[in-house]
Amino acid sequence: MAKHNQSKKPKVVVIGGGTGVFTVLTGLKKYPLDVAAVVTMADDGGSTGVLREEFGILPPGDVRRTLVALAHTDNRMLSDLFNYRFEQGGLRGHTFGNIMLTALERLTGSFETAVDEASRILGVDGEVLPVTYTNVRLCAELEDGSVVRGETNIDIPKHDGRLKIKRIFLDPPARLSRRARAAITNADLIVVGPGDLYTSIIPNLVVRGVREAIRDSRAKKAYVVNLMTKWGETTGFSAKDFVGTVENYIGKGVLDYAIINTKRPSLQRLKHYEKESAEFVHANGMNSKPLPVLGDILRKRGFVRHDPEQLAKVLVSLL
Amino acid sequence: MAKHNQSKKPKVVVIGGGTGVFTVLTGLKKYPLDVAAVVTMADDGGSTGVLREEFGILPPGDVRRTLVALAHTDNRMLSDLFNYRFEQGGLRGHTFGNIMLTALERLTGSFETAVDEASRILGVDGEVLPVTYTNVRLCAELEDGSVVRGETNIDIPKHDGRLKIKRIFLDPPARLSRRARAAITNADLIVVGPGDLYTSIIPNLVVRGVREAIRDSRAKKAYVVNLMTKWGETTGFSAKDFVGTVENYIGKGVLDYAIINTKRPSLQRLKHYEKESAEFVHANGMNSKPLPVLGDILRKRGFVRHDPEQLAKVLVSLL
Repeated sequence: MAKHNQSKKPKVVVIGGGTGVFTVLTGLKKYPLDVAAVVTMADDGGSTGVLREEFGILPPGDVRRTLVALAHTDNRMLSDLFNYRFEQGGLRGHTFGNIMLTALERLTGSFETAVDEASRILGVDGEVLPVTYTNVRLCAELEDGSVVRGETNIDIPKHDGRLKIKRIFLDPPARLSRRARAAITNADLIVVGPGDLYTSIIPNLVVRGVREAIRDSRAKKAYVVNLMTKWGETTGFSAKDFVGTVENYIGKGVLDYAIINTKRPSLQRLKHYEKESAEFVHANGMNSKPLPVLGDILRKRGFVRHDPEQLAKVLVSLL
Repeated sequence: MAKHNQSKKPKVVVIGGGTGVFTVLTGLKKYPLDVAAVVTMADDGGSTGVLREEFGILPPGDVRRTLVALAHTDNRMLSDLFNYRFEQGGLRGHTFGNIMLTALERLTGSFETAVDEASRILGVDGEVLPVTYTNVRLCAELEDGSVVRGETNIDIPKHDGRLKIKRIFLDPPARLSRRARAAITNADLIVVGPGDLYTSIIPNLVVRGVREAIRDSRAKKAYVVNLMTKWGETTGFSAKDFVGTVENYIGKGVLDYAIINTKRPSLQRLKHYEKESAEFVHANGMNSKPLPVLGDILRKRGFVRHDPEQLAKVLVSLL
């Protein structure tokens, strides 16, 4: 397994969750790197939410997406299978991968072993490391002092989206997993994001010990700034606001680089986002620390997302 | 894949279903043989029944057991996972393997491809061949002319168990699958059973074309007689009755050998079967065709089942 790998390949740790971690990993996996993904364990919506409720297991959703991102490319059928979502009967809404992680956890009695076994079955090249094995709920305290409980309630805001999020915390407080700590400590490059700031990125950073582990690691540290704002989470944010918020959680001066896209999507592509009140993130107002790394890292068409190849190229250039 | 295998290893085809096919395959897989299993597609109970109902797919249960029997022995975790049965929530009662076959069928649009992909994932050594891809219900006509519909209703008789089964048929009539036909035609040894006569063995034999394929194959043909009778199916049957019933479906004089256990289980082991009205099957009264192959092929303890090693040894000696 990768943890016993004595290779001299550069070690890159990606910290995140959701679709962002998939994007950055699919780009990075094409390079001769030792890749580990530290993923958020705060999801509680959809299939993941139902399985947490019914089986009391840890959330499989972000782990599943990360496993697929790092799965051996010959295993296309297995990856498709892992992402397959049932549409009928008692299985409706569940992805096959979530069901498999649940079965493996029941069978082995350990979520950690379940992820390792799933990695082996999928031929994962790299390590998929849950940031914590503490069973937590994500909570957001808003600027009016009220608390939104549950990732799915923050992600798809049922609160007044005009109220800003004051702070994010986990209930109960979570402990950084041993192997995630080791990966962060031994990394040559730590990549934070991209991903939804409050529901995919910060849920990792508020795990006890993460802040110190990142700070004390000799790795270069890069944060990939979001392309678009998100209503109810990052309304009106510029790149500077994103960076400032991350620094609030891991400490000022810790980040070396802020990776910022400067290519504005066409009005036609942005139109889709208007009804979600999501806006393009501008690079202006950045200071010199973290160093802004600017460029066109936008996917050429479709959803406004990072281009995996371009993003990976920028990240690898930092090593 | 095995179908392209040009090896000169003896080709053995096992025809059956249920736990019997598992027993014979786990014994045979230790020999240098080209093993194919032709399995019944008439199950409609439990998890399989629910998935047939909800997804309209072919029954995965017997295929699943057969895949596990032939799975690469290094893949112990995968086999355990495949057999894992959920106990909670919307997944309750489903085995993981059935869910996986369902997802693969949905994903590939073909049950045949689904079985091949599952074989590949499990590292199956041999071929698992559904006897038919026709979506059928198993029916039993009783001696009073009434018809019991559905495998699960025959298997766990809801009818008067004292009434004998006159004949078994499939509705609609089923067509022998191309690859199952090829395996039977090219076999050096055809093993029928062991397994529940009316719910695991004959459901294969009544598929259109099976009778002719077995008859016309140059293979040696052996039938493994059951150890115990089954209430409502084979009440009061001797070995001769089992053989005679199979011959009713594949034709008299087709079978070369009848493999019959002569070791009587202890009274203590038989006690468990009293409440099921199941009785030990006696070898007496056999003729010389098929040739009775008699011996101690009983498992040493536990359920009254065939010993996989002893049974395989007898079968291999026929090659």
